Amino acid sequence: MHSSDQHHHPVRVPPARPEINPLLVEVTRGAMVESRHRAAIAVVDVEGRVLLSAGDVERLVYPRSAIKPLQALGLVESGAADAFGCSDAEVALACASHNGEADQVAAVQAWLERIGCSDSDLECGPQTPDYQPALEALFREGRHGGALHNNCSGKHAGFLTLARHLKVPARGYIQWEHPVQQTLLGILEMLCGLDLRGAPRGIDGCGIPQIGIPLGNLALAMARFADPSDQPERRQAACARIARAMRDEPHMVAGSGRLCTRVLSATKGRALVKTGAEGVFCAALPELGLGVALKADDGTTRAAEFLLVQMLQRLKVLDDEAQRLLEADLSPVLCNRVGLEVGEIRLGSDWPFN
Amino acid sequence: MHSSDQHHHPVRVPPARPEINPLLVEVTRGAMVESRHRAAIAVVDVEGRVLLSAGDVERLVYPRSAIKPLQALGLVESGAADAFGCSDAEVALACASHNGEADQVAAVQAWLERIGCSDSDLECGPQTPDYQPALEALFREGRHGGALHNNCSGKHAGFLTLARHLKVPARGYIQWEHPVQQTLLGILEMLCGLDLRGAPRGIDGCGIPQIGIPLGNLALAMARFADPSDQPERRQAACARIARAMRDEPHMVAGSGRLCTRVLSATKGRALVKTGAEGVFCAALPELGLGVALKADDGTTRAAEFLLVQMLQRLKVLDDEAQRLLEADLSPVLCNRVGLEVGEIRLGSDWPFN
Repeated sequence: MHSSDQHHHPVRVPPARPEINPLLVEVTRGAMVESRHRAAIAVVDVEGRVLLSAGDVERLVYPRSAIKPLQALGLVESGAADAFGCSDAEVALACASHNGEADQVAAVQAWLERIGCSDSDLECGPQTPDYQPALEALFREGRHGGALHNNCSGKHAGFLTLARHLKVPARGYIQWEHPVQQTLLGILEMLCGLDLRGAPRGIDGCGIPQIGIPLGNLALAMARFADPSDQPERRQAACARIARAMRDEPHMVAGSGRLCTRVLSATKGRALVKTGAEGVFCAALPELGLGVALKADDGTTRAAEFLLVQMLQRLKVLDDEAQRLLEADLSPVLCNRVGLEVGEIRLGSDWPFN
Repeated sequence: MHSSDQHHHPVRVPPARPEINPLLVEVTRGAMVESRHRAAIAVVDVEGRVLLSAGDVERLVYPRSAIKPLQALGLVESGAADAFGCSDAEVALACASHNGEADQVAAVQAWLERIGCSDSDLECGPQTPDYQPALEALFREGRHGGALHNNCSGKHAGFLTLARHLKVPARGYIQWEHPVQQTLLGILEMLCGLDLRGAPRGIDGCGIPQIGIPLGNLALAMARFADPSDQPERRQAACARIARAMRDEPHMVAGSGRLCTRVLSATKGRALVKTGAEGVFCAALPELGLGVALKADDGTTRAAEFLLVQMLQRLKVLDDEAQRLLEADLSPVLCNRVGLEVGEIRLGSDWPFN
């Protein structure tokens, strides 16, 4: 894992790193492989040792929403969550890419009101929910999704809570220079073990900065979240608080029908997992003191989700009950529109961990 | 391009072919490439000469919906379309993966009634439209999508029309053994230049058989559709009829906001394009007598759509006006939820055609 201080903001985006990641996921239909996904994955301990890896774990990736639990550290370790009486459900929402379900939206709204804000303070932009029952409920009332329905609204409520606590103007809290984002940058640098000020940057779907981080360092950050015993005391307490919130309020982290919620429930928090856009997935495994980070090259969620559960299985994080609860995720079947099984998702020929 | 008669129905699906397709599409965000897509593409003439290619053009692919225009040949060249007075809009719907928009659904319904059928004869299964305005209209009425809303309902109406014309029982028209599917198999074999009876098979989302075909032979079939002068006379007339319908009724082939409709309109039918699931795209270019077939390894539509328009540009099919109309497709920009430009889709480093 390399330090990234040689990275600058180029005028022209350089080509992708030429390393070819392994074929880790295949999608079959009938008698053929129909599609295939390449990916990289890293399992790292708190010392930064790469215990298992496939593919280019030094390639820079944007963590996207997969580091929301780390971003929630800003809310908790600053004392903001306690000062504003945040519940576990609210801390879980700060870690969430939620479905925009009614209870999730209501919870974010109530939280914002309690800190003296409203949805007009959210800078994440509006979102029409992807979750169809939530969409149907909105459309039946003649409404569309707003900022509260944005899957990141809980994270943004956390950012606003932190801004309030820091007694800085909330407006512009998504900007790189804002104290909220600078606080999060400091946390991320410490957990990743990298100076990220010169790392390549982009802007996330919800407007916040995204920072290019080597996949292995992202896994290291998750390992340190899983086992923060070398971290400052306040951070240790914050990690434990966030882990508890994700474990006890799994619905708030994602929602109905979502893998993150299923895994958090099935493992009773032994796997603190979080999905990100463009095929990123992270997991912190407190009992093992390990972090997992993976990215599907092509950005597909189906590949990332499949790899995540396969790696949890490989690391023996899933007990019999969890395996039973996650059976459809461990052996995914594709059905067509009349409900017939037509294919499956399976490990690709380059999967090296059997 | 190899004959596929050595393929059988294996009990166990063999691994993907090991050839690594080139990196043809990159997705950037800010200062980095975030995701990347590998793909294969073939441009073939009516003699089966591969004029341009990238990647493994002998790899078997399921054509999915990208060969609907070829399947519509069964409807037209059999005389069924004329016997049942099919309009150009209906022939276009037979070639369509439509949005489930109100006018499309109404047109399929009227067609079915005219041939003495109803939506209960459709064996495609129900679909909730992906096109959001169509979805919203349904939900506001407290309804969900049915078989008429299935993006393949026009194709299935064509199959039912053919069954009626052949005076065979319609039920089971999606099964391999049914005279409708056997008619389509014969057409496909002749256009691809392959005996497909032993080719690997799967089942499509809408229930019909899918047949594994080398990508290059798929392009050959499209070339022969573009220039059918070596084909039987009835097929020549049918190709011309379908080409006219796609050109004159582009909305019926896909719908509002859809690339197929935009390209058909912008090129005034000089590019007869059709998308398929899992990253397949085909084009027939009548003026050039060429066929194009491409597949993104990972099955993503964003990669397939981008490659399709890039190849049309490369083949000089797009005049100034078409380039203007397709500007956002030729140089796609990614925006986040607040409307800010955050990245782009661009050609990957292995694109060999510049």
